[in-house]
Amino acid sequence: MKKNIIIGQSGGPTAVINGSLYGAVTKGLQHSESIGRVYGMINGIEGFLLGNYMDMSELADDDSLERLRVTPGAYLGSCRYKLPEDLGDPVYPQIFEKFQELDIEYFFYIGGNDSMDTVSKLSRYAKTVNSPLRVIGIPKTIDNDLIKTDHTPGFGSAAKYVATMVREMSLDVSGYKNTPSITIVEIMGRHAGWLTGASALARKHKNDNPLLIYLPETVFDIDTFFAQAKKALAITPNVLVCISEGIRDADGKFICEYSGATGTDTFGHKELAGAGKYLENLIRSKFGIKVRSVELNICQRCSSSCLSATDLQEAIQAGAFAVEAALAGETGKMVTFVRESDTPYALSFSLSDVNEICNAEKKVPLDWITPDGCDVTEAFLTYARPLIQGEEEVPHKDGLPDFIYR
Amino acid sequence: MKKNIIIGQSGGPTAVINGSLYGAVTKGLQHSESIGRVYGMINGIEGFLLGNYMDMSELADDDSLERLRVTPGAYLGSCRYKLPEDLGDPVYPQIFEKFQELDIEYFFYIGGNDSMDTVSKLSRYAKTVNSPLRVIGIPKTIDNDLIKTDHTPGFGSAAKYVATMVREMSLDVSGYKNTPSITIVEIMGRHAGWLTGASALARKHKNDNPLLIYLPETVFDIDTFFAQAKKALAITPNVLVCISEGIRDADGKFICEYSGATGTDTFGHKELAGAGKYLENLIRSKFGIKVRSVELNICQRCSSSCLSATDLQEAIQAGAFAVEAALAGETGKMVTFVRESDTPYALSFSLSDVNEICNAEKKVPLDWITPDGCDVTEAFLTYARPLIQGEEEVPHKDGLPDFIYR
Repeated sequence: MKKNIIIGQSGGPTAVINGSLYGAVTKGLQHSESIGRVYGMINGIEGFLLGNYMDMSELADDDSLERLRVTPGAYLGSCRYKLPEDLGDPVYPQIFEKFQELDIEYFFYIGGNDSMDTVSKLSRYAKTVNSPLRVIGIPKTIDNDLIKTDHTPGFGSAAKYVATMVREMSLDVSGYKNTPSITIVEIMGRHAGWLTGASALARKHKNDNPLLIYLPETVFDIDTFFAQAKKALAITPNVLVCISEGIRDADGKFICEYSGATGTDTFGHKELAGAGKYLENLIRSKFGIKVRSVELNICQRCSSSCLSATDLQEAIQAGAFAVEAALAGETGKMVTFVRESDTPYALSFSLSDVNEICNAEKKVPLDWITPDGCDVTEAFLTYARPLIQGEEEVPHKDGLPDFIYR
Repeated sequence: MKKNIIIGQSGGPTAVINGSLYGAVTKGLQHSESIGRVYGMINGIEGFLLGNYMDMSELADDDSLERLRVTPGAYLGSCRYKLPEDLGDPVYPQIFEKFQELDIEYFFYIGGNDSMDTVSKLSRYAKTVNSPLRVIGIPKTIDNDLIKTDHTPGFGSAAKYVATMVREMSLDVSGYKNTPSITIVEIMGRHAGWLTGASALARKHKNDNPLLIYLPETVFDIDTFFAQAKKALAITPNVLVCISEGIRDADGKFICEYSGATGTDTFGHKELAGAGKYLENLIRSKFGIKVRSVELNICQRCSSSCLSATDLQEAIQAGAFAVEAALAGETGKMVTFVRESDTPYALSFSLSDVNEICNAEKKVPLDWITPDGCDVTEAFLTYARPLIQGEEEVPHKDGLPDFIYR
């Protein structure tokens, strides 16, 4: 008898999270000999508990699936919901009852660390009750901080977005050679500097911006920063600095926490700003020159305008590989990427025990950061460059990207 | 005897300012029967005074001109330099001596309000000294605030960028239906709300975001805003609000001026944040829900990732039209756009007296803003929609846009 599939999305969205959904749905529909229906969870496991799901074959009638492939954001909706540690909690039989009602034997969860925690718990619970349910995690995070995998889907497109914007802003700020300036660009990644490091890809020639790059993996010292900024201003009048939102000082305190510590607006509300805004004010006082800060913010995770064809293709393949793995009997695993070579870039797919992945974080290796702490090494660039290759055309209608809406 | 051309760029860059440069250079090189050399001013009139210029034919040897066409930012470098009001100032003969040294009879300045002021002064000075110099302004500003022209080159691409990002962010924030949220997007345009209004183009269906749009042309009242935000939250749990950086209250005070009025960081430096950050903190205190603010910042003026083919084409045509006009004997004029029809969209080119343009500002007509002050009307959309049509492929190399560098 045919069994059914359900797929969910969880955590922060990326530009290619729907690519993985597309890959899993397409592969599931292909296996019509063994798979009956392909369901999608609405708003992850949290929404599923409330009875929210849809039949994904609805999208197969027209070009919807093709548009889903390049639509950013979580099409099925997302959640931030942590299952209880105690597998004896009544929520587990509730969830499994719903799986049974829908004859679901395969569950795929697309997400990062927290989502892999859900995969771990559900697969372990399945064993305790002898359920045939197989659970596979499909990695997703722009932060690129999952262990056991060379990189994660979503990182390549975010890295391409960051490098593109930094290159464009560098052209913008270089227009005023007669007016020295510092532009601080704040990039996502609170604990891991992968995305901030990717800004180095923007450089086109020697002494090109960004001249300074600060990752959260090393200590951010304000006096060292001032000295390095001064040196950079001697190289070019218009300096662009890239910082991770999570840079910290020697005491481990986030730089952004210094911001607005005593600041309140006229209504008495405490004002919080980011690390970039804080450094902007600080360096303006110190150097007395034009300073600006730019927070790339959520566009870096949700824009399809700089889709990496490599990233999208791998996201799709990860979804498809997960379905094949589950059909082959695997469970409690996450799809992982194995880099076979840098040049030419070659990748293969594998699986790793999700229990080892869910509570760990992969940071940028310290020897991929230069000794002065304000740049990444060639090894970092060799790692990151293949992941941003290739452009993907997003269908447009009436001048704007023609996304699919649920 | 053949005479020479010089072209300069001034003010803030746009995604298509080099499109106009490309148009003027290409047209100048075509007229080899009457034009000798085509020069470019480095860093505008300020750099030219220091003797900085280049021969643009250098770019004609390979694909450089083609890459220039889609390279954002001011390729020649920019300046913010105001010529003295007194035409008797010694700077005028200095400039004209340099024009004469290079046998320049045609000067084209690509820029906004302030650049048109330079065009005005130089053309008026030319008359006083019976110089044959002809000066023509080529409009450029993402703010779209020049009078006597239907719109300005640079606005269409910036509007397309704003609408695209707002559509993508709207997908992003709509992922969490179970968590009500407000996202405030701050858009450029201190005195004119054209770009902020363009965010309305992002809507795909009824009740789609952005649900609220505030332009600087109307009074921003905080209590009205709270009431409208509350109403919007009843329509959808994840509300996206677009505001102009220049929204002001009934007293004419910029909302961003309320920010950090009493705020200092731990080093005692005054912290300044934008209107979006200010409203973020305010509405978080008031509503107690998740609130985020996003400042689109300089990417909206310098990114080539959302180039409007219509905008780029018009920017090129404006540059070419300026050259033809000067050759036909015109001076002291700015190229203007005349909209012949909305559907099908049709445009023609004309000239207007630059003296009438240089110190005026075109704002969004009040009857293009809804009576409740939180949206634009269908008339606005009919005006803006044609300007974002068509996509332009930017050549890429090694995963990133392959721009040209001076």
